[in-house]
Amino acid sequence: MKFDKYTKILIIGLGVIGGSYAKALTEKGYNVSCITKETADVRFGLENNMISYGTTEVEPQLVADAEIVVFALYPKDFIGWIKKYQHLFSPGTLITDVTGVKSSVVYEVQDILRPDVEYIAAHPMAGRERSGVEFADPSVFRGANYIVTPTDKNSLEAIKLCKALGEELGFLRISELTPEEHDEMIAFLSQLTHVIAVTLMNCNDSDGLEKYTGDSFRDLTRIAKINDRMWSELFLMNKDALLCEMDRFIEEFTEFRGYLANEDGKRMREKMRASTARRSLFDKPAK
Amino acid sequence: MKFDKYTKILIIGLGVIGGSYAKALTEKGYNVSCITKETADVRFGLENNMISYGTTEVEPQLVADAEIVVFALYPKDFIGWIKKYQHLFSPGTLITDVTGVKSSVVYEVQDILRPDVEYIAAHPMAGRERSGVEFADPSVFRGANYIVTPTDKNSLEAIKLCKALGEELGFLRISELTPEEHDEMIAFLSQLTHVIAVTLMNCNDSDGLEKYTGDSFRDLTRIAKINDRMWSELFLMNKDALLCEMDRFIEEFTEFRGYLANEDGKRMREKMRASTARRSLFDKPAK
Repeated sequence: MKFDKYTKILIIGLGVIGGSYAKALTEKGYNVSCITKETADVRFGLENNMISYGTTEVEPQLVADAEIVVFALYPKDFIGWIKKYQHLFSPGTLITDVTGVKSSVVYEVQDILRPDVEYIAAHPMAGRERSGVEFADPSVFRGANYIVTPTDKNSLEAIKLCKALGEELGFLRISELTPEEHDEMIAFLSQLTHVIAVTLMNCNDSDGLEKYTGDSFRDLTRIAKINDRMWSELFLMNKDALLCEMDRFIEEFTEFRGYLANEDGKRMREKMRASTARRSLFDKPAK
Repeated sequence: MKFDKYTKILIIGLGVIGGSYAKALTEKGYNVSCITKETADVRFGLENNMISYGTTEVEPQLVADAEIVVFALYPKDFIGWIKKYQHLFSPGTLITDVTGVKSSVVYEVQDILRPDVEYIAAHPMAGRERSGVEFADPSVFRGANYIVTPTDKNSLEAIKLCKALGEELGFLRISELTPEEHDEMIAFLSQLTHVIAVTLMNCNDSDGLEKYTGDSFRDLTRIAKINDRMWSELFLMNKDALLCEMDRFIEEFTEFRGYLANEDGKRMREKMRASTARRSLFDKPAK
C-alpha cells in the first residue's frame, strides 16, 4: 500500500467534490484519472488540468491499474458501483469515499467487498451549495475538517494512508470517529442546519421580502439552495439520528417561544448569553 | 429643513451603528458631533476622525445647535432620552433613528414629541454581530437595505431628507414601509433568524463538536453571538409578530419532520426544490 507521486489515483464521479480532489491532487503532482457520467465533465477536467485521463466508460484496465480509488458518488450509486464492478479491482487496491453518511454505507460496502480490497471511509467536511465540476475548488478544504471513520475491518496502514490523503488535500484538521459518532455529529452540524435553511426559506412566501433582507437571513439560507436528490438520500440514510436532532431543536425552540410569550426577558437573555459564549468555540481558525 | 455639508448632525449613541453613521458622514465631509455614554468611545471617535466633537454630557448648546439628530440607542433608552431632553431641541430640528422595531417606538415618540420637532423613523438593515464603536464600519451599508417608516404625521420633506441620508450613507436600496409592515417583515427576516441561531447553538452541547464543523453550521450560528440586552428588548417590543413567525416556522419544520419520519423522499425533494428556487431571489447584489 503506497501513496506517493507515482501512485495511480482514480476518481469515480467528477462533480464538485470529486473535481476538487482531482484538482488538489493534480496540482500537487499526483497522477489522477477519472471515470464519470458526462463527456462534458471529462472534457472540463482535462481542459482545466484536473486529470491526466478521463472517460465515461468503466474501462477495465483503468480500474485494474488504479492503486487508490476515490468514490465521489451519491451514496446509493457508490454501493451500486461496488456491486457491479468490484471484480475489476486489482488485489490490494485501496478505496475511499467522500460520502456524507457513514453507518448505512460503510458496513454494507465492507460486507460485500472482496477480501483482497480495502475500503477506508472518509468525509471531507467542506461542500459548496452548487453542484457540478465547474464549481470544484480545492481552496474550500483549507481550514476545514476531514474525518476518517474506520471500522475493525480496517488496517492501521489504510487509516494512516487515508489521513495522509486528507493532509495532501489541504485539510486543517484530520480526525477519526466511528461511523456512528460521525452520523450523530453530522445529523446535528450539517443535516439539521440544511433542514432549518429549507424550512426558513419555505415558511414565509410573502412577496418582496428580498427587498428588505439583511445578511442574517442570507447567511441562514445560503444552504437552502440544495441538491435535492443528494440531500434527501443523505437524510433518509441517517433518518433516526436526524429525527433525534430535529426533536432536540424543536424542544429548545419551543422553550424559547414560551419565554417570549411570557415576556420573560431574563430567561431569554440567559439563553442568548449561553449561545454567545458557546459560539466562540466554533470560530473558524485562520486559513 | 436642509441637508448639505454645512448641516449640523448630532449622533446620540456612538456604538457600532452610530459609529458607522458618524464615520460614513464625516468621510463625506459632513459636520458630525456626538453624545455618548463612555469617555473612551468619544476618544475613539475623535482619534479615528469619525466626529468633529463629542461629549458624554447632554450639553444644551450642542443639542440646540443640531439640525439633524440621529438616535442610535436601544429602543427604551431612545424613548427615555426624548422624554427627558426634548426641551433642548431648537424648533425645526429633524430627528431620526436606527431602531430595529418600529410600531412600538414610532407612535409613542411621535405622540410625546413637541409639535415643532419632526421625527422620521428609519431602519438601516445592516448590523454586525459585535457591538461597540470599535467595530463601526460603514462598508456594511454598501449593498444593504435602508427602510424609512413614515406615518401620517410626517412631512414629505422629512421623508425625502431621510432617504437622502440613507443614500449618503451608501445604502443600495432605499424603501418605504409602514411601521406595521416593517415589524412583520423584521420579525421574519431578522428576529426569527436570531431565535433560530440561538436555539441551534443551545440545543446540543456535546463536547468537541467544533472539531468537526463545516461552514453550514458556522453560517447558521454566526448571529448566535448576540447582544442579549438589545435583542431581548427588540423581541419583547415586537412580541406578537415574532410569535406568529415562530409558529409558522414550527409548522413548516414539523411538516418536513413528518416527511422524513414517513420516508417520503418525494415530498422532501419538493420542499428542497422550492427552497432552492426561492433562495435565488435573495442573492446579494454585487457591491
